[in-house]
Amino acid sequence: MDKPHEKLASLLTDDMAAVNDLIKLRMASENAPRIPEVTAHLVDAGGKRLRPMLTLAAAHMCGNSTPYHIHLAATVEFIHTATLLHDDVVDESAQRRGRPTANLLWDNQSSVLVGDYLFSRSFQLMVETGSLRVLDILANASATIAEGEVLQLTVAQDLKTTEETYLKVVRGKTAALFEAACKVGGVISAADEDINDALAAYGDALGISFQIADDLLDYGGASSAMGKNIGDDFRERKMSLPLIKALAHADETELEFWNRTIAKGRQEDGDLEHALELMAKHNALEETRKDAVYWAEKAKASIAYLPTSDIRDCLMALPDYVVSRAH
Amino acid sequence: MDKPHEKLASLLTDDMAAVNDLIKLRMASENAPRIPEVTAHLVDAGGKRLRPMLTLAAAHMCGNSTPYHIHLAATVEFIHTATLLHDDVVDESAQRRGRPTANLLWDNQSSVLVGDYLFSRSFQLMVETGSLRVLDILANASATIAEGEVLQLTVAQDLKTTEETYLKVVRGKTAALFEAACKVGGVISAADEDINDALAAYGDALGISFQIADDLLDYGGASSAMGKNIGDDFRERKMSLPLIKALAHADETELEFWNRTIAKGRQEDGDLEHALELMAKHNALEETRKDAVYWAEKAKASIAYLPTSDIRDCLMALPDYVVSRAH
Repeated sequence: MDKPHEKLASLLTDDMAAVNDLIKLRMASENAPRIPEVTAHLVDAGGKRLRPMLTLAAAHMCGNSTPYHIHLAATVEFIHTATLLHDDVVDESAQRRGRPTANLLWDNQSSVLVGDYLFSRSFQLMVETGSLRVLDILANASATIAEGEVLQLTVAQDLKTTEETYLKVVRGKTAALFEAACKVGGVISAADEDINDALAAYGDALGISFQIADDLLDYGGASSAMGKNIGDDFRERKMSLPLIKALAHADETELEFWNRTIAKGRQEDGDLEHALELMAKHNALEETRKDAVYWAEKAKASIAYLPTSDIRDCLMALPDYVVSRAH
Repeated sequence: MDKPHEKLASLLTDDMAAVNDLIKLRMASENAPRIPEVTAHLVDAGGKRLRPMLTLAAAHMCGNSTPYHIHLAATVEFIHTATLLHDDVVDESAQRRGRPTANLLWDNQSSVLVGDYLFSRSFQLMVETGSLRVLDILANASATIAEGEVLQLTVAQDLKTTEETYLKVVRGKTAALFEAACKVGGVISAADEDINDALAAYGDALGISFQIADDLLDYGGASSAMGKNIGDDFRERKMSLPLIKALAHADETELEFWNRTIAKGRQEDGDLEHALELMAKHNALEETRKDAVYWAEKAKASIAYLPTSDIRDCLMALPDYVVSRAH
């Protein structure tokens, strides 16, 4: 069976080709050749292009009455690429999608400024659609993304981080753009407001299940396919959901362990294995998986009442696939 | 005699108070308290608030028919603050306006992400004006700013940098926002297109003379008042205009000196003094001053035909004042 995002890609082949052409055209800069170099490094690395596909899918489901869904799909990918560039600077990452990051190949300066450029470019693309409604949605999403990233930074290594705070961070760093990507596809196609809201709710819930599944993969699952190593989040001392759940049940000895390894960052050989034991003891991974399923179900329910079509079927299958990766 | 920007501030007192209130309101973040902390550090540091004043001044000169000039003035200041935050990361600066920079007080991560947040906030403010024209102008300005910053990075320490390239960098890093700040003041007041163009030309030329005067101050002039030390650009090996002019006349021995101190960055005691001697020998500072005057005259000529008013008189006096700082 095809994976749902692959099936979606084949249903949207022509549109995705148009999106890729537009991305290449707009990432060019006559004055500063460094810009397309850095951008091409990320854009060519590929990734699944999930976000622009969501915009195209939503537009097609809503009758796709203007050509501007292509602009908006490119917009969403530019915003995503800009945040990746800035994230890699903030996290001091050396690898993304199995390749060296731009901040490593060039420098942090280029990553910051090229990110700013792509953000401006995304803004120009939106303006070209002539839709103030779309601009409003994406401006709000951008603010939520930045807010989520700052929040993540300020609660980093804070063992008192609650699931509520975790959800705020995830909505910012992941779900806000999924939500906006889906919603603008409806808005640009002049869909009814309840359909736009359904698409937004789908994107929000899909984004949250996507991030929770990612957290889960990091403490197990077949992560080699993701270009991610087991235990990265542990080593980077991230307050991910499995850790928050294990902490909620920790006794005093366990709290000391988490305090040393996460809060203070003094990690030794065998610590990751012990962390996994504690998570198993408290069912933290199983509880996390249940949350991912909860959000996946919520995503499906949001669009279950929309008219069936090949594209809708793909969107219905996507949340289950996202969660199944983490098994 | 009052300085023209001080006179402008007193003519625009009420509007500037409204701009400051709006800035404080919109830099807040319920979810991430780090954001207003970092922003307040910069916003409270003050600076002359020249860019938002230009927007207000342009709007008043054009009849100021909507309340949205306040939004746009705040927008322009947010964009400016966001670029300062990112610039200080890129330049690894420790001081701005005589105070420690945000990247020093907090960290580079906060500066990158809070800059992104402010940029998103500026975008929201623009959307609220409901003017696609204004969004277009400011989206283009943002792209030009980022492009200019990347270009500056890629030609850093490159002794072959031409005056043409220098002008592109300056248009990006300084003049693009001055230009947009002036133009949107006209556009939001529904001014005639030739007036909008005149205001844009004024902002562009004022921004260029402002940056050239800044370059000049760095190799002399009464710079202590600016919180800037003489020779900062030399120590940071910036391809500023006095250096480009001195290089154009350099013989082989002089080229070796510049190659060692700027391209290779191996500076010794007495090098700044020798650099100043070479600039004097080739009239580089005098030539730079002439360029600043040229752009100041151009700025004045752009708006000379607009109806006289107290505000227009301030704008006419501003370019001369900018250049006079560097005497």
